[in-house]
Amino acid sequence: MHTLGNHLNFEQTTLIKTQYDLKHAINDGSLFLMGNGYLGMRGTFMEAKKADYAGIIVTDTWDNADGKWEELSTVMNGLFADLKIDGRSIFERPWTDFKRTLDLTTGITTRDVTIQLDDVNVNIKEEKFASMDDHHVIGMRVSITADGPVDLALIQGIDADVWSLNGTHLKEVSFDSNDLGLYSQARLSSAQDIIAVATQCNVHEIGKQPLSITSKTHISLHPDTPYAWEQIMVVTSSHETKDPTLWVQKKLEDLAPYDSLKTASIKAWKEKWVPFDVRIKGDDTDDFALKFNTYHALIATPTHKPLPIGARGLSAQSYQGAAFWDQEIYNMPMYLYAQPDVAKNLLLYRYHTLDGAREKAKKHGYEGAFYAWISGKTGKELCPDFFFKDVLSGRPIRNHFNLWQIHISFDVGFAVLRYVKQHQDEAFMRDYGLEMLIEISRFLASRVAFIPHRDRYEIIRVQGPDEYHENVDNNAFTNYQAHYVLKETLQALDEYTPKNPAILPRDDELELWQSIDAKLYLPKVNEAGLLEQFDGYFDLESIVPAHKVTERLIDPEEYYGYPNGITVFTQCLKQADTVQLFSVHPELFDEEVQRTNYHYYEPRTLHFSSLSPTTHALVAARLGLVDEAYKHMKKALFIDLLNTNEAVSGGTFIGGMHTANNGASWAVVAEGFAGVAYDDGLVMNPHLPNAWESITLPLYINGALRTFEITHKTIERTDESSGPIAIRIQGTPHTLNSGEKITYTHSS
Amino acid sequence: MHTLGNHLNFEQTTLIKTQYDLKHAINDGSLFLMGNGYLGMRGTFMEAKKADYAGIIVTDTWDNADGKWEELSTVMNGLFADLKIDGRSIFERPWTDFKRTLDLTTGITTRDVTIQLDDVNVNIKEEKFASMDDHHVIGMRVSITADGPVDLALIQGIDADVWSLNGTHLKEVSFDSNDLGLYSQARLSSAQDIIAVATQCNVHEIGKQPLSITSKTHISLHPDTPYAWEQIMVVTSSHETKDPTLWVQKKLEDLAPYDSLKTASIKAWKEKWVPFDVRIKGDDTDDFALKFNTYHALIATPTHKPLPIGARGLSAQSYQGAAFWDQEIYNMPMYLYAQPDVAKNLLLYRYHTLDGAREKAKKHGYEGAFYAWISGKTGKELCPDFFFKDVLSGRPIRNHFNLWQIHISFDVGFAVLRYVKQHQDEAFMRDYGLEMLIEISRFLASRVAFIPHRDRYEIIRVQGPDEYHENVDNNAFTNYQAHYVLKETLQALDEYTPKNPAILPRDDELELWQSIDAKLYLPKVNEAGLLEQFDGYFDLESIVPAHKVTERLIDPEEYYGYPNGITVFTQCLKQADTVQLFSVHPELFDEEVQRTNYHYYEPRTLHFSSLSPTTHALVAARLGLVDEAYKHMKKALFIDLLNTNEAVSGGTFIGGMHTANNGASWAVVAEGFAGVAYDDGLVMNPHLPNAWESITLPLYINGALRTFEITHKTIERTDESSGPIAIRIQGTPHTLNSGEKITYTHSS
Repeated sequence: MHTLGNHLNFEQTTLIKTQYDLKHAINDGSLFLMGNGYLGMRGTFMEAKKADYAGIIVTDTWDNADGKWEELSTVMNGLFADLKIDGRSIFERPWTDFKRTLDLTTGITTRDVTIQLDDVNVNIKEEKFASMDDHHVIGMRVSITADGPVDLALIQGIDADVWSLNGTHLKEVSFDSNDLGLYSQARLSSAQDIIAVATQCNVHEIGKQPLSITSKTHISLHPDTPYAWEQIMVVTSSHETKDPTLWVQKKLEDLAPYDSLKTASIKAWKEKWVPFDVRIKGDDTDDFALKFNTYHALIATPTHKPLPIGARGLSAQSYQGAAFWDQEIYNMPMYLYAQPDVAKNLLLYRYHTLDGAREKAKKHGYEGAFYAWISGKTGKELCPDFFFKDVLSGRPIRNHFNLWQIHISFDVGFAVLRYVKQHQDEAFMRDYGLEMLIEISRFLASRVAFIPHRDRYEIIRVQGPDEYHENVDNNAFTNYQAHYVLKETLQALDEYTPKNPAILPRDDELELWQSIDAKLYLPKVNEAGLLEQFDGYFDLESIVPAHKVTERLIDPEEYYGYPNGITVFTQCLKQADTVQLFSVHPELFDEEVQRTNYHYYEPRTLHFSSLSPTTHALVAARLGLVDEAYKHMKKALFIDLLNTNEAVSGGTFIGGMHTANNGASWAVVAEGFAGVAYDDGLVMNPHLPNAWESITLPLYINGALRTFEITHKTIERTDESSGPIAIRIQGTPHTLNSGEKITYTHSS
Repeated sequence: MHTLGNHLNFEQTTLIKTQYDLKHAINDGSLFLMGNGYLGMRGTFMEAKKADYAGIIVTDTWDNADGKWEELSTVMNGLFADLKIDGRSIFERPWTDFKRTLDLTTGITTRDVTIQLDDVNVNIKEEKFASMDDHHVIGMRVSITADGPVDLALIQGIDADVWSLNGTHLKEVSFDSNDLGLYSQARLSSAQDIIAVATQCNVHEIGKQPLSITSKTHISLHPDTPYAWEQIMVVTSSHETKDPTLWVQKKLEDLAPYDSLKTASIKAWKEKWVPFDVRIKGDDTDDFALKFNTYHALIATPTHKPLPIGARGLSAQSYQGAAFWDQEIYNMPMYLYAQPDVAKNLLLYRYHTLDGAREKAKKHGYEGAFYAWISGKTGKELCPDFFFKDVLSGRPIRNHFNLWQIHISFDVGFAVLRYVKQHQDEAFMRDYGLEMLIEISRFLASRVAFIPHRDRYEIIRVQGPDEYHENVDNNAFTNYQAHYVLKETLQALDEYTPKNPAILPRDDELELWQSIDAKLYLPKVNEAGLLEQFDGYFDLESIVPAHKVTERLIDPEEYYGYPNGITVFTQCLKQADTVQLFSVHPELFDEEVQRTNYHYYEPRTLHFSSLSPTTHALVAARLGLVDEAYKHMKKALFIDLLNTNEAVSGGTFIGGMHTANNGASWAVVAEGFAGVAYDDGLVMNPHLPNAWESITLPLYINGALRTFEITHKTIERTDESSGPIAIRIQGTPHTLNSGEKITYTHSS
């Protein structure tokens, strides 16, 4: 067994914890999360309730219960079960021999615990899984044994009094039962959707409380009479079926036995893993941690229909279960390289939310598509105007994520272009992509200002990815990203005809776009080789290392940014926008410039965004700054495992899995250390960390999955599929057939 | 004697107070201020020191002692005198029969007080004046009597340990004496200028301390042996003479006797008053209060050379003794109508500070003249970036008065145009005015943004006169004022040739200016008849009456505005920019629109700027809303007398006389209630308050002073100069000769 820290261990592909403490329930519930992109069941135990942060979060259940936060709902928990003596839960008694596990390859979690009663010890073995085969199903099997005689009451049922961040979503909750199991239905508070949950379990003495239905079974345990039960929950909503209650009833009737469900799920998981099964030789911990992050990236991603990846996946309601730019910039690369269908599905989500983006543009006086900063099902803006709290005054802070962080639109356009270029999906471009690009360019054209005095277009009053500095002009990341998308759109207009020609730009529009293409201000590198993050950034107070600025905190929960946080008038960054720019556009600046800027900005960066470590690791690895890259990669790999990020900021709960970091960890290995890129063909410029011997990397290229084993000196193609693959290594073109190996030397 | 409130009374033209309390020393020192535009001696008594807020503020002594605030210096106090028994000041004993006065027509202040010693009462009569005849001179005469025998020590001298707001300006202080008196010299902390003070007084036992020089005289008082002395101080600086110490020595040698100095000052004051001697019949208190405000406006205005009017005049160092837009908008009208030479002198000050304005424009990436928000001698920006303090966190607040309140430049241009139009001073236009207008237009052209999407120029990211809302776009006041100046500049370019032709716009510049003139966005009145103060204002929370918003204060000293004060996300205003717009451009909107907007904005206005009451009084009076106007006028007249404004805001001391309000009170009477305007000739549309019978109003027209007596029904010309005056009354042209009277009827 290998130690990870924080009482976590692993063995092969299994995460193990042998200590239980309610204080860690929020975090452990996320780490041991089960899920399948449709739902996430937090890693809590059968007896867990609201106070233990039990929650089953189902996608496509957005609801606004408190008038402010629209978020995914936590549905009724159909896997509730407790064991009681004289009405009191035995789990209140001392626990010994505790052990919980999560097998990343199968998604199965277990708990093994012995409860010390007065005269007898009861051992409980709990096994759960969210089916990867049938997304509506979560199964549980529990077996209990005692070392002496004891009579227990098993209380099984559906608990509707669940953990919810912002208000009670479940209204008009009703319960029912029949021979097959228990049923519950609820109506979402504002969305009015119907949620139905059914649980297959023992049906004996039915008890109905306002927020639960239970079945009671009397169990007499002896050393020679262990007891076991299975409990299977199904869930759906009115987004999926007209009559959810009928649907779950039918589902229970047709339900396969527990073992069949489990086997099917394991099989689906096995297939799921194939394209994502990266192996790191040389450091088992890194290998495991990467797998852990990939597991969470996968279960966070809806694949059943075009829906967003939540910034905390389905691990908690924080960040509203909604997509940010994270989806296109951090989660997308893994799918682009390993399973492009999923990438396409995510882009289709952005296509289906174009109307929301159009509405947002219109609302603020612009044209085209201004994508929501926080995007749920419809793409309407979910980000409230007042987000964080000034903890010193108790007053809400008006952050302008929803209004000034306009790069989101260009990030979406950038992802469209990446997908189409890399997979030559011309049909997608015609049917969806071009329309998105046109609408994004239209938005840009309505958003720029022409400054006669400087004879150029500028992008004024924005917020870059470094969210601590709001209301800035000509943010380098934003301007370059916008320009790239506009330029490529103009080119695409020559090459493609959109399915919907009504969307095409008018002549006067096209003329304006060409003028913007020619005269949009693109900040240049100064004499010192530096690219200014935004106009006036270099005039701000320089504090190196950035962390010293935290000495100015009055309250540890203070928000660091706009309008009057400790970083606002300093060069201290949440994350570095120029490094971010290099991560997406390495082609724009030569490596020397990128290195100079990396060394300038990194010490000024607080890395208080969970997005920062992977960006820095990726860019540093590409630049051959391997030790620096590995340092940031280590941080990225353990953000969740070691719980290094805060759960609360500016008074707002932001806990849960860092889904973008989970996905981007894969990208650091592939695009960073393995140096994979797509530039009219596969490129590979590896810079492996010293601690690693090799990376085994499956990549989806030219319509099929290929696998490469990359060492410090060689690149070998290890898949068995036929046909050569063209690949540029350190600038030299090669072709690699199955089994062939190339020796390379480092470029820097 | 008439009661004013706050223990203040008046009799004819004399302000009287019969109660003394150190708690009121800051305010009383301002109310009883003596001055002459060159210096201000605070209304404190001979024995007053730092703790009593004694201070003599001399113009043109800007210095930065604390690294942040450049302000006028308080010079050495040469009128210090104390009476002692056994080394203790007799002023520490009980005071009775206290009475202090300030005669507004002569500028003479007095104190009469009886000090109760153990066995005897000592009566002290103190008289002081700052000479209006010789600006470097302040005189004092004191006579003391006792009702029994008592021996006193008179300590006279120069005290350099004076009240100073932000740091110690007086460095390297040295002292000297000769037969004529005492001398002191000091060097200003950062400015390095030399200040010299000399005092003519008894020269007996000389005592030198680090920060003072004194002369000690032994006095034996009996009921039949009163004692009196005169003490005369002179002051200058190295801005005026090469060797200030030599200059003050020479000055003492040549000094006329006290009575001659006093007579000369009284004579000068009498002449000074002639053009400003407005009389209000029907309400003696209003009449007195107006005179009080005019007195303070006059002593705040430098006339000896082109220097700014400080926002607190020379009554305190707050607001840095520097000019704001107040000078052009609030103080200028009185001079435009009563003494145009002073108006011209103030405009020359703006001309001489053009380089400072050019430098500021350049620093921020613009062209032309961006006038300083806080303008001292050179016109360089004195406004610190961090001004107020967030009293809840203790952190400084970045207000953007110096960067975003760009209307200052257009206000200066507006004043140039007013002066030239009203007095047909074509020479001024050619020699100075046109250059200023060109540079201001040049600044505008470099500051606008063209928004292709809306096919118009916009002015983005500004702060209007309502300072609570920073970072707004298309502030109606700013856009209209900018457009007016640009349009008039283009016209002036056709009519005049500047002395310096190098300043003329290039052809491409001119083309741009014409384009801006044609396409600058000028917000229009909406369907409800309302003009939006800035883009998005109507979307903010409406709180009526505005004062209810103060319930949200956490700390009474909180700054109300940007970035997170209580008003920021509401429609609550410090002062109303649209009403402000009507005050300077009544011609732009018909009266109905102005009334609709007045009624909308007034209840949303907190009037927490001392500039707000006169603006509202002026506009309301013009619109015939007489009771409303009179309510605001009453407030304006008593801002200082009743001390209704705060002395501290956001942790910054802002006490002292409200000089703009002092001057604008005159403007409300003339331009508001008397309805005077200049529109290619004199216009008069009176709306007198019900409480007033008549206004007697001298006006400088066609090169001479004329006087009008305006009642509710008639306008009579009462001066004796010859020649007719053309005047439009309620739209009808008339000519008025001396002694002629016209009956008018109200237009509304």
